[in-house]
Amino acid sequence: MASSSDNHKSNNTALLVIDMQKDFILPDGLMRVDGGQSIVPKVINAVEFARRRGILVIWVVREHDLLGRDVELFRQHLYSGEKAGPTSKGSDGAELVDGLVIKEGDYKVVKTRFSAFFATHLNSFLKTAGINSLVVIGVQTPNCIRQTVFDAVALDYKNVTVIVDATAAATPDVHAANIFDMKNIGVSTPTLEEWCKSHD
Amino acid sequence: MASSSDNHKSNNTALLVIDMQKDFILPDGLMRVDGGQSIVPKVINAVEFARRRGILVIWVVREHDLLGRDVELFRQHLYSGEKAGPTSKGSDGAELVDGLVIKEGDYKVVKTRFSAFFATHLNSFLKTAGINSLVVIGVQTPNCIRQTVFDAVALDYKNVTVIVDATAAATPDVHAANIFDMKNIGVSTPTLEEWCKSHD
Repeated sequence: MASSSDNHKSNNTALLVIDMQKDFILPDGLMRVDGGQSIVPKVINAVEFARRRGILVIWVVREHDLLGRDVELFRQHLYSGEKAGPTSKGSDGAELVDGLVIKEGDYKVVKTRFSAFFATHLNSFLKTAGINSLVVIGVQTPNCIRQTVFDAVALDYKNVTVIVDATAAATPDVHAANIFDMKNIGVSTPTLEEWCKSHD
Repeated sequence: MASSSDNHKSNNTALLVIDMQKDFILPDGLMRVDGGQSIVPKVINAVEFARRRGILVIWVVREHDLLGRDVELFRQHLYSGEKAGPTSKGSDGAELVDGLVIKEGDYKVVKTRFSAFFATHLNSFLKTAGINSLVVIGVQTPNCIRQTVFDAVALDYKNVTVIVDATAAATPDVHAANIFDMKNIGVSTPTLEEWCKSHD
């Protein structure tokens, strides 16, 4: 599809890397997704591949108010104690896991809900950048991945792709059930290897 | 919770009845959801119960342009033939199934995407009406039900309920997997009987 000589300007694809933060991924993370750590190498590889192909890399992260005032109601109790809640602004848990670094030319979007599009400027940013194809990786499949993907379909992105082995959930069953539902609404779900080949 | 003397004004709960249209429910519907027909009696009962309790009934339906210009990209091919596509405006397939009737005091919202909140005025309408609790029934669990529910959680509705036997998907497995994911984000999933008892 895209040749290696493409740069950001000539490329209409963006890679959304979602919630690869320590609190979601590390064994002692405050909101650990069980399948998260196993996909880190694939996420690193996907980001490196995207950069080589001139695909825009967008880091989508959660960062919450220390008092939890911008958290979903059902999670606000996690922010009422003495210790900082999950991915609180400025906390170590809000940082990306080792191996993932925001570089010049990348873009970062902070969200407070599951979907990267909910109450963010992501859609207007992407439209202005001429992006019509999205590739989604990160955690976790039933929540932030899926809600972002369904919103992308609703927003008429032409191609929406989820890399099946660079996304993860609490269990393989939950992951598979959500991949199944996304396929049913026209989403592509290649492995990282398949996706890379399709861009060679 | 609510007494039988409550009326719309005193009640902060709304019942969202989603996509109970002939094209989604009937055996010859243009976009039939296999589990749809079996829940019709429960949907009728839920609506009747809501009316007796003064719970606002909101009918959420899809109605599409005959040319498919307001349909998701992955479905636009269904609107290019000589026959009207699924739930086209004015078509018989866009009508509610027999047994379901919009009555005075109910409200109707037309949507063009999975979520009842996507590019509709539903949220502002509900906020103005003082609604903070939503109960969702209809079809189908992985798409319109789930996307509406996840948006409701993101929009900070205090209580979000899916009546597990008044919603349906193509298969019981898909239905169950989606109910599981919704429970995990704090959504209540009672049976119709359990829900009615909680309002007695």
